[in-house]
Amino acid sequence: MTGDRSEDGARVAQGELSRFVEAVARAAGADEPSAEAVTRALVGASLRGVDSHGVRLLPHYVKGLKGGRINGSPNMTFTRQAPGAGGLDADDGLGHLAGYRAIGHGIELAEEAGIAAVAVGRSSHFGAAGAYTLEAAEKGYLAIAVCNADDIVLPFDAVEPFYGTNPISFAAPAAGKRPYLIDMATSAIPWNRVLQYRALGRDLPPEVVVDAAAGATTSAEDAVSLLPLGGAVYGYKGAALAGLAEVLSAALTGMAFSFAMPGFAGPDFSTPRGLGQFYVVIKPGVFRPEAAFAAGMADYLAQLRALPARDGAKVMAPGDREWAVERTRSASGIPLDGPTWQAFARQADELAVPPLVALA
Amino acid sequence: MTGDRSEDGARVAQGELSRFVEAVARAAGADEPSAEAVTRALVGASLRGVDSHGVRLLPHYVKGLKGGRINGSPNMTFTRQAPGAGGLDADDGLGHLAGYRAIGHGIELAEEAGIAAVAVGRSSHFGAAGAYTLEAAEKGYLAIAVCNADDIVLPFDAVEPFYGTNPISFAAPAAGKRPYLIDMATSAIPWNRVLQYRALGRDLPPEVVVDAAAGATTSAEDAVSLLPLGGAVYGYKGAALAGLAEVLSAALTGMAFSFAMPGFAGPDFSTPRGLGQFYVVIKPGVFRPEAAFAAGMADYLAQLRALPARDGAKVMAPGDREWAVERTRSASGIPLDGPTWQAFARQADELAVPPLVALA
Repeated sequence: MTGDRSEDGARVAQGELSRFVEAVARAAGADEPSAEAVTRALVGASLRGVDSHGVRLLPHYVKGLKGGRINGSPNMTFTRQAPGAGGLDADDGLGHLAGYRAIGHGIELAEEAGIAAVAVGRSSHFGAAGAYTLEAAEKGYLAIAVCNADDIVLPFDAVEPFYGTNPISFAAPAAGKRPYLIDMATSAIPWNRVLQYRALGRDLPPEVVVDAAAGATTSAEDAVSLLPLGGAVYGYKGAALAGLAEVLSAALTGMAFSFAMPGFAGPDFSTPRGLGQFYVVIKPGVFRPEAAFAAGMADYLAQLRALPARDGAKVMAPGDREWAVERTRSASGIPLDGPTWQAFARQADELAVPPLVALA
Repeated sequence: MTGDRSEDGARVAQGELSRFVEAVARAAGADEPSAEAVTRALVGASLRGVDSHGVRLLPHYVKGLKGGRINGSPNMTFTRQAPGAGGLDADDGLGHLAGYRAIGHGIELAEEAGIAAVAVGRSSHFGAAGAYTLEAAEKGYLAIAVCNADDIVLPFDAVEPFYGTNPISFAAPAAGKRPYLIDMATSAIPWNRVLQYRALGRDLPPEVVVDAAAGATTSAEDAVSLLPLGGAVYGYKGAALAGLAEVLSAALTGMAFSFAMPGFAGPDFSTPRGLGQFYVVIKPGVFRPEAAFAAGMADYLAQLRALPARDGAKVMAPGDREWAVERTRSASGIPLDGPTWQAFARQADELAVPPLVALA
């Protein structure tokens, strides 16, 4: 590594970051397809600016691979149960591989059935849900992805957490352009935002977290749980969406509910978490000619982006912020913060992987 | 009608209300299947307490039927384009009939393909989206329904409305119990709430409406547009969900976008509105045995409802409030407010339909 970047971090080229992440995953026990999948998902998220679900999670997956929670050489099996429906048994492998495989099977089925659903079982944490809907959209399909996560979000009117941040992702192709991409937690904010604000000594907006007594607070220091999207008055909507993700990714797959799954952060890193994920893939060409759909999307996006905006703002379509960051980071590198840079240096040492080289 | 109830309204038995709504729809030009569908949808919504989308909308549909906007004797045609996908041309008929027909076709296809999508074109306003997902859930299927509506909701950072309240509904069967039911606008509140608060002289919560200058206000009197779910800080999430509904129900069906459709409230009541709606139906039994899915849903709902609640509250699953109202109203009648009672009296006169008889 070039100089001491443990405080300020560094910028790294996409290719070099991919090389490093894949080498670390391989050295930690991931087979080639698994290492490729986790690399693509994490580096892709970092490239789009989704840093919370980007390469900073690499040490987490290494811990899971080395501890036995995650099977580095899974034999994932897909069973087609109906023309448009199937189940993927992920054999406790990396959730990223399961996600890409599920979307691949979903596309195959949707190509024939018009729409397809893939229920994933015995999976693990898959990073950003948007990685998989994006994969479908880039190939010309619409897709929905949901999963659940360990409980940190209060249902409406409850004083104990019950849901995970249970994300919903949706992507649709936009002919010749980067897709329409939604990738949102059903809580107002992710837990990482709390940690980030805590580190900065900043207060949070109202109605996004509660303290140990489930009382309202804006203190990042005092926050122990998250509120669903919609806050104190309309949080029943965010909670309902968290429940939608829960029903599809747990009740329908037979996998663990948020309130019953082993914690993301351990302490047990040897027992597989048994996570479910659920995907829907839609082939637009069965409903109307592809060109007409593409023209409709172009019209919709052009009208949306042309709307007059608040002072100093610009009206953006879901995903636009990500594509702007992607352009910048593709050109001038992906920034890593100090702690991530340090963690990667340790990882290189421990796993005897050639260390990451930063941009000058 | 028994006595003057034009100010206080009245309570009406479900059967009598259904008799009246169906007779009015028939007299206004709806054929038997159309009249049955609109009756079932509207009375069902009123029974569940969804008064904004219940029988109070009857005069609106009568106006559409008589004006020519809505075709009372549609020849709706379904085309299966793939094992799991089809399109329903609603022939400008009542959206309620289109909704029930679409769900019926969706169930047929999902029975074979495991999942099905039905894109509805040339439809009209269909009332509460939950009517159709509920229909699927009562038959043992999961369902999603979305539609768009004329523009009254600001995209995030915009100063002009662009989206409708674009609802998302999701329902899942809960063995032997009333289903899990989400039926939510992607705005924080519906426009009817603004009108209701205006009539009562009450202020709205912060971050749900804007005034004529697109500025923040809590005044129901000054409100001209709605903000997406999530308000000033997280409204990009509600706006993204509104966009999801827009992409599926307009870009994928080829029907009008929110910003381009003729207004719900006229003044033109002769031109069909050309609305799209989009449905997904899932057969749970293809993913795991029906009994295991049912047990999973029961476990999930029991755990959710047993959570400790805030003082004076009770943790409810989506739909629980509706089922509680349904029980009460089934037993002791459906309340109609004064203006609705008056409108119904006029409707009875104009269409020579035997007037509604209230409960004592």
